[in-house]
Amino acid sequence: MKVSVFRKERFNAAHRLHNPLWDDAKNALIFGKCNNPNYHGHNYELIVEVRGEIDPETGYVIDMKVLSGLISEEITERYDHKNLNLDVEEFKQLNPTAENIAVVIWQRLRNRLDARFELRIRLYETERNFVEFSGN
Amino acid sequence: MKVSVFRKERFNAAHRLHNPLWDDAKNALIFGKCNNPNYHGHNYELIVEVRGEIDPETGYVIDMKVLSGLISEEITERYDHKNLNLDVEEFKQLNPTAENIAVVIWQRLRNRLDARFELRIRLYETERNFVEFSGN
Amino acid sequence: MKVSVFRKERFNAAHRLHNPLWDDAKNALIFGKCNNPNYHGHNYELIVEVRGEIDPETGYVIDMKVLSGLISEEITERYDHKNLNLDVEEFKQLNPTAENIAVVIWQRLRNRLDARFELRIRLYETERNFVEFSGN
Amino acid sequence: MKVSVFRKERFNAAHRLHNPLWDDAKNALIFGKCNNPNYHGHNYELIVEVRGEIDPETGYVIDMKVLSGLISEEITERYDHKNLNLDVEEFKQLNPTAENIAVVIWQRLRNRLDARFELRIRLYETERNFVEFSGN
Amino acid sequence: MKVSVFRKERFNAAHRLHNPLWDDAKNALIFGKCNNPNYHGHNYELIVEVRGEIDPETGYVIDMKVLSGLISEEITERYDHKNLNLDVEEFKQLNPTAENIAVVIWQRLRNRLDARFELRIRLYETERNFVEFSGN
Amino acid sequence: MKVSVFRKERFNAAHRLHNPLWDDAKNALIFGKCNNPNYHGHNYELIVEVRGEIDPETGYVIDMKVLSGLISEEITERYDHKNLNLDVEEFKQLNPTAENIAVVIWQRLRNRLDARFELRIRLYETERNFVEFSGN
Repeated sequence: MKVSVFRKERFNAAHRLHNPLWDDAKNALIFGKCNNPNYHGHNYELIVEVRGEIDPETGYVIDMKVLSGLISEEITERYDHKNLNLDVEEFKQLNPTAENIAVVIWQRLRNRLDARFELRIRLYETERNFVEFSGN
Repeated sequence: MKVSVFRKERFNAAHRLHNPLWDDAKNALIFGKCNNPNYHGHNYELIVEVRGEIDPETGYVIDMKVLSGLISEEITERYDHKNLNLDVEEFKQLNPTAENIAVVIWQRLRNRLDARFELRIRLYETERNFVEFSGN
Repeated sequence: MKVSVFRKERFNAAHRLHNPLWDDAKNALIFGKCNNPNYHGHNYELIVEVRGEIDPETGYVIDMKVLSGLISEEITERYDHKNLNLDVEEFKQLNPTAENIAVVIWQRLRNRLDARFELRIRLYETERNFVEFSGN
Repeated sequence: MKVSVFRKERFNAAHRLHNPLWDDAKNALIFGKCNNPNYHGHNYELIVEVRGEIDPETGYVIDMKVLSGLISEEITERYDHKNLNLDVEEFKQLNPTAENIAVVIWQRLRNRLDARFELRIRLYETERNFVEFSGN
Repeated sequence: MKVSVFRKERFNAAHRLHNPLWDDAKNALIFGKCNNPNYHGHNYELIVEVRGEIDPETGYVIDMKVLSGLISEEITERYDHKNLNLDVEEFKQLNPTAENIAVVIWQRLRNRLDARFELRIRLYETERNFVEFSGN
Repeated sequence: MKVSVFRKERFNAAHRLHNPLWDDAKNALIFGKCNNPNYHGHNYELIVEVRGEIDPETGYVIDMKVLSGLISEEITERYDHKNLNLDVEEFKQLNPTAENIAVVIWQRLRNRLDARFELRIRLYETERNFVEFSGN
């Protein structure tokens, strides 16, 4: 009998969409204003879902303080008030679309979470554009 | 390895719930104030979820500009500021409950989306009443 | 020493913007898709602000149950799931723009509220378009 | 062909996290400020999802008035403006974590819903901490 | 030329509305379910508005880190996860209605803010009930 | 008898807080992580309030399509998906704090609005930090 618990966190970052294998014209055509060489930015909203059994002693699936600390260490301290393309190792070679950011966040948290938990990531780039990844 | 992308759009429309096979008393009994013959209306909020592989060249599952354009053509240009019962072909014979509207939206978008994508529709009639349909 | 208290209520209604003194072409030009003769609709969100002294016995400016009952009687029972142009007396001759609806709501509540209170109305037609009226 | 319908309700309650088998020091260590013996409280937000076939006569999966009445009887009338630990039978022996509350709500509603419906519960304790349970 | 800056914070607390000068019947009549002797609770949302001149060196009216620290010290560390009636000195003799809480918060922050700033407090008890106080 | 009308718009931009008259240590001390030389970014939310008389012919204070077009020309087309420090003329010499951005937006719109209207700007940098300016 499994329950999902969700924790919402935020980070504010600059980014730019760009494929270095394409010339400028193709980058402008495909990515439009998201390709601006001087960057733009977002208030990203991250929802981390952890699914598992309720521990009968605590009544918790996972202690939210523990989960929140983990997200802070792995994600928000590393991404908040940063330029994703320039300041964050994992996006120096990987285009920081919402899809790619969600996959990277999932991988970083998956490495830290006990295997008995299932993990899903939802990432809002704006209120109208968001993505979800659960590892398969 | 599949990622879901979501796009939120809005349309404002009038509608009325009514079953023409029932008499007025039964319509009033079942549909209550939603049966008002002069119509009432809503700010509908539509969330379209498309699930697929990330294209390694773009980092996109689907270009949001393309998805948004498709929703505009198929749904919002046709439903926004309309009377669903009187102005929209598909609800002249079909009761425009949130459930039925969601199914029709799913069908219209399914016809336009490449078969490699999975599709799910969430439709908010109000902040407190909403529905979801994914085709099965 | 005055405090403002706010109560949020909702009503869902159909309406149409139209000036009967103009011909169809001018109505279409000025009101655009809001002029659709078959109506469209909205989830209206109403915020009523009442400003006054705190009653030292209750700690209330006004009992929220009383304020909510008043809004219900004067506004939501009369407007909810209605066609404003056809079903609501005050908009049979008055164009139901958000501005005009807010003024009418203010007048109806002003008549019912003790003179010691100040009154302000905020009305959301959509999340992006809203109006405010405080009687002057 | 199944559609999900969702109904959002609210209740405001006090609670305290506590395991009577532990001493005070361990309770304070594990539950932190949520262990305050004088209680604290939340505006709980409850989303009930019911999944089933659309009834072709009504266009409804389930009449929202019926679903809302059921939630009111089973949950909100019993939990709203209550102390969950002291006033609500089911939490006198069960720690009222969001996880446990969601499971209990699911069980109470499951007993009342026709077996042809699937049921899922989402419960927000705060905007940033929430849980989901669907019975397995 | 003055600009207002706003900072939103949150605290979760239990409370009970009660006038010790009244008997139980009158308390129940006036305060209804808010009079529950076992308390209930809320996720309070606090918006602090500070109005003043922009400092030309920083471009700030007031450093948000400073304002946030002040709110934390004076309000959220003292109210969060507390029972307002039992745990918070200022409500042991004062009925913790939203109105009274807002006035007390205003007074505590006014004492700490430089006189050149104007101060206004908005406090949400629920999404539908909120209050505002600016000292006059 | 004046009514306020409000229009909400959005723009996503990168920025950096920096005073060129200070050395790096002082900039880091005062602006903290907002001083990151590689920029960070936000989803800015802009609410423009225009206050005036209702035109008896239209029932409008100002046509929302006109107001929205004006905001688009003056603000969102110029700021959206831009680096405010590098790409927007008015912030090349002016630190793009929320306060300064709001004042500049007010000035740009004031120049375009008829003198009979009053104007107020609210700008959200994040959900928790926002500012307001009305010209005095």
